[in-house]
This record gives sequence, C-alpha cells and structure tokens, in this order.
Amino acid sequence: MDVNAVNISDIETPAVLIDLDKVEANLKRTQDYADAHGVKLRPHIKTHKLPRFARRQIELGAVGITVQKLGEAEVMADAGITDIFLPYNILGEAKLKRLAALHRRVTIRATADSPETVAGLSATFAGAQKPLEVMVECDTGMGRCGVQSPQAALELAKLIDGSPGLSFAGLMTYPAAGQYAEAARWLAQGKALLTAAGLSPRIISNGGTPDLWHAHEAVVATEHRPGTYIYMDRYQVEKGVATFDDCALTVVTTVVSRPTENRAIIDAGSKALTSDTLGLTGYGRVLGYPEAVITSLSEEHGTIDLSVSTRKPAIGEKLRIVPNHCCVVSNLFDVVNLTQGEDVVETVPVAARGRVD
Amino acid sequence: MDVNAVNISDIETPAVLIDLDKVEANLKRTQDYADAHGVKLRPHIKTHKLPRFARRQIELGAVGITVQKLGEAEVMADAGITDIFLPYNILGEAKLKRLAALHRRVTIRATADSPETVAGLSATFAGAQKPLEVMVECDTGMGRCGVQSPQAALELAKLIDGSPGLSFAGLMTYPAAGQYAEAARWLAQGKALLTAAGLSPRIISNGGTPDLWHAHEAVVATEHRPGTYIYMDRYQVEKGVATFDDCALTVVTTVVSRPTENRAIIDAGSKALTSDTLGLTGYGRVLGYPEAVITSLSEEHGTIDLSVSTRKPAIGEKLRIVPNHCCVVSNLFDVVNLTQGEDVVETVPVAARGRVD
Repeated sequence: MDVNAVNISDIETPAVLIDLDKVEANLKRTQDYADAHGVKLRPHIKTHKLPRFARRQIELGAVGITVQKLGEAEVMADAGITDIFLPYNILGEAKLKRLAALHRRVTIRATADSPETVAGLSATFAGAQKPLEVMVECDTGMGRCGVQSPQAALELAKLIDGSPGLSFAGLMTYPAAGQYAEAARWLAQGKALLTAAGLSPRIISNGGTPDLWHAHEAVVATEHRPGTYIYMDRYQVEKGVATFDDCALTVVTTVVSRPTENRAIIDAGSKALTSDTLGLTGYGRVLGYPEAVITSLSEEHGTIDLSVSTRKPAIGEKLRIVPNHCCVVSNLFDVVNLTQGEDVVETVPVAARGRVD
Repeated sequence: MDVNAVNISDIETPAVLIDLDKVEANLKRTQDYADAHGVKLRPHIKTHKLPRFARRQIELGAVGITVQKLGEAEVMADAGITDIFLPYNILGEAKLKRLAALHRRVTIRATADSPETVAGLSATFAGAQKPLEVMVECDTGMGRCGVQSPQAALELAKLIDGSPGLSFAGLMTYPAAGQYAEAARWLAQGKALLTAAGLSPRIISNGGTPDLWHAHEAVVATEHRPGTYIYMDRYQVEKGVATFDDCALTVVTTVVSRPTENRAIIDAGSKALTSDTLGLTGYGRVLGYPEAVITSLSEEHGTIDLSVSTRKPAIGEKLRIVPNHCCVVSNLFDVVNLTQGEDVVETVPVAARGRVD
C-alpha cells in the first residue's frame, strides 16, 4: 500500500516506524566493516522479516541470509533469496518434508546438535539428488543448544559425514553475551580437532549483533550472523554497539492519560513493546524524554514515570520509543511504516511475521 | 478450516491448543457463580479474541463484552455482538470517527479519565442521534489510568454530564492484584458522592479474573469484567483462582535438543510463550513434568532446567505447557487449534489478533 507523503504525526498509534535512511546506514556501515576485515556477513532476517531488506542485505554484499524457522525460509525463498542458513534442529516428518522441498529449490544449510537430529535428516535426504549440508551447533557458553565440547563436535561431524544424504559443512555458534573471545577459542579448538581428523570445516559461523564490532577478532570464523544491526535497539545502545541516533525502528505511541503529575500512560503496552527487558531497567527509551522511565507494561498500556523528567508530555502527545528488543516488536505488528525524514513513504506487511514453525 | 480428528500428537509445533470442554466448564462455573450472587458478567474478550467464544459467553448469560481496542470492537461488532464496553481513553480524530461508526450500529460505552478525553468525545458526539455513554475510570490502587479520588470522579462525571453528546453512565476500575476490598471501598465512596450530587452511577464496573471469586464482595459493583477465566493460566493457578486441570489453553512444543543431562531445549520461545513472568519464576508449567523449570526464553528456544526432575523428556518428545499469561499468547498465533479429548476438531484464525489500534 502506497500512502504517499503521510506525515509521521498523522499515523494512528501504536505503530512501528522504520527509518529507511538509518536502515541503509546501518547496513552499509556493517558491510563496510565486514569487507574491511574480510568477514562474510550472513544476516539474520528474524529482525526485519521483510524480503526487501533481505534482498538489500545481499545486494550490499551479504553471502546469504539466516532464518530461524522453516516458515521464514519459505517466505524468503518465495521472495527470491537463494542461499539460506537454518541454525535450528529440524525434527519430525512434516518439517523434514518442508526442508526437503526447500532444498530442491534453494541452497539451504541445516544444523544438528544430536544424533537424533542427524538420523532424521539422513532418513529424509538419503535419496536426494544433492546432499544436505549440515552444520554442527556448538554451545560455546550460551547454555542453549549445542554440543558441549570440541570433542563432541568432532564425534557429531563424523556421524554426519558417515550419514547417507548428508555432508558435513562446519561449525556454528551463538556466543553468550560478551563471551566472543571464549567462543572463538572453543571454535578454534574444534577446527583443529576436525582438521586433524580429516574433516576440516568449510564454514565456521558466528554471531550476532552484540559482538558485531568484534567479529574480526574471531579469526577462526568464516561468517558472522548479525540480525539486530539493521534496526538496532535500546539493548544494543546500552551495550555500546550503537547510538540512539542509529536506531531505525521506533514505536510511535500516544499519551492517553496523565493521571498524576509524574505518571503518563501510553497506548503501547506489551502487545507493542513486548515484555522483554534483556536485563535492562524499563521497557524502552522515550525519544526526547531521556529521563522518562517506562516502568511497567500491561497488554495495552505502558506506564511512564516522569519523576525526574524536566519536561512532561501532555495528553494526546505522540511519543517515539526505541524498544529494548526490536526483533520481537517486528513479530507483533502485521505492518510496518517505512519512513524518510518525517514522511511515511510506504506501509508494508511483515511478510515473515508469525511464522511459528 | 476443518481438520477432522487430527490427533493432538500430530500437530506441528509450536502451536496453541484450546480444550473446548475446559472452556465450557470455565464459562459455566463462572456464570453460575455470577448468577448465584446476582453479579452481571461482562467478559473481556482480549483473552480469546474469538467471536465464537464471545457469542457463547453471551448465550450463557453475560450482559455484553469488554474489549480493549477499537479494532477488537470492530471485529466483535462484525460478528454480531451488540453490547460492547471499551474501557480505554479514545483520543484523536481518526479513532473518534471509528468510535462514532461503532456507536451507530451497536451499543458501545466509552471511558474517560481526563477533561481532554471528554472534550474529544463531546466534539465528536455533540450532533449524534443518541448520546454516547461514558464511564469514569477510577485508579483504585492499580497505578495505571484513572482519576485519583472519588472527588475527582465526581468532578469528571459533572463535566461529562454537562458535555453535549455525552451521558454519564458510571464508574469503572481495574483493581490492583489482591486489592479488591480497597477498590470496593473507593467505588462505594465515589457512588455516595455522585448520588449526593444527583449523578447516581447506573453502572459500576469491576474486574478481572484474579479477584473473580471475590466479585460478590464488592456489593457496590453492578458488573465484573473477567477475561482470563475462559482459559485460565499459570498465574491464576499460582494465585489460587484455578487449578492446572482447569487450564484450557496450552502451548504444544517439541524438545529439539538435550545438550546436557539436565537441560532440555524446546521450540517454544518468547514468540510462543511471551516473556511475561507476572512476577513468577519461570515461563510456564510443563504438564507431566512438574519439577521442570523453564528458566529462560529466546525468541525461538525455551530452556528447561531438569535438575530436580525425576523424569526427563527425550529429543522429539512433545510437551504441553500452561503459559504464565494466556492472553498474550492468543495475540502471538494467527490460528489456534480447538480440541476435544485428544482430537483437534478445528483450527480457527484468531480473528481479533493483532488489532493494535
């Protein structure tokens, strides 16, 4: 839907605004950094869920994209993206069939951290025209999925290598926050073990945005998978990865109540900002009101404490908020508004929103 | 979409299951309680967002429904619901026009807690064929929207009463958790002041599910607005309002990884369970694994600590989880699966999902 030159101030709230100039600057800055250091980028599209931005990331030099769900991969393949990495254990007949269908039309690389996942993949791809490339997920400190040691990575790589229909491609990890150095050491040990065993990993895939500007320090990695960098958010600003001026995604909201001198209630609650804190105090940054603290959210209301704010917004005033975590906000809205300066230039559906499986 | 007799175990995960027998039992138990105590029910449909359940609530005796957004009201009016309460300050020309359009076709009652909201409503409805009924929102301890004292409620009621196009209808509140007695005292004081001033409130609207079984103690209230009671959730169980056996909404998920002896990773993260804790430890109850603790969520992964679990689920096993807060889960899924016993009898779109404004 083209809604030429609607001003941001005329948008119904709550709504998501995406500043196209900031998107382009964030993408270029990151691609320039990657190019300067010989790091390949494989952006995670979970942040934006929009084919146009996936295509732009590739135009600028990304080697492909990362998705977290088969449903996201299907949307992106439909949109013409041809190189997709799925860092997730795919289990069960129905999902394996969908993976096989994707494999027939694009380059898709899968992931495993257990013999069970490898067995399902092999049973599905044993008769395929081309083998499925499989990465071994490594738990380098995050405490989520992943094999627990370089030795275990080697064992699983051997299993993949010996499984009909599969080809061992390499190692992947998502480092714990701030533990990029430990993760790099882990991966280097894994690479050494694998290489000694004749299973040299072709790809070593690292991530994400919190460690973005350290990506080049993990010399063992061949690619990096940042997601949030396209929009940035309050968490990344607090971690020193970006500034509020870099943040391309904002939620525009209206002050619907000022029940007391120091309290403002906005029409953005957890259905707009999400209840993700990521360890931060408050639920977002109110632009123009740096001392305002979003202290609590119910589904449709946000409560702002203005106790230490020198300026206090009025009922009916529209505020723009940088959320703590932009990726989850993209998943809550059916559409986002693309802006240039103060104009909304286009309102677009979030094509890969709500792809739960 | 009718998917006759698909077994729950064949559902792709993550997915939402709604047990129809439990829904019916929850609705009937609550309506019976309300009838026995002469309390009118005006259920909040934010929990289910499904026209069929709104109709069923009214069939069983509810006097109307409550919605939190104009978009929800529009969906419900389209589905034939004719008595809707919107406990939200509506501001701005576009939203006021939508409110006026709803007012022309159904009985819709609005809310204000400020002269600014009253002014906007009056400007919109001054020429209307029938006046808009407006409730005064009262902050009885919740610390969200609402006038701050019974005296302030009287002042705003006078303003509404004197505003062209508007008719003062009564008082509404959402009590703070556990403060139903304080809320009832506040409302009784407000009623006394209003009555003495010749503005006797026709309706006094109270809520929600946490105080459900105390609704009859607030003798001043004329109606109660529970939402969660249709599904119940872990928060309500922890508060003693229901049992896990009453919980009609579950998220079915698959164990995708067992990286260590005491860790399971499931394919339900914050995009399925939400990061709402509501003050609880963990992100939901794993049915059949009462000692399992969902310790953290990322968007597509949930991490379960099995340290004190006697049984531990296997990779590929499907688990059913009662989420902390079922209302927000309804907003995350495009469809829900209606079940009877072990069968999925119908998969239906969540019609009022994602109605952000």
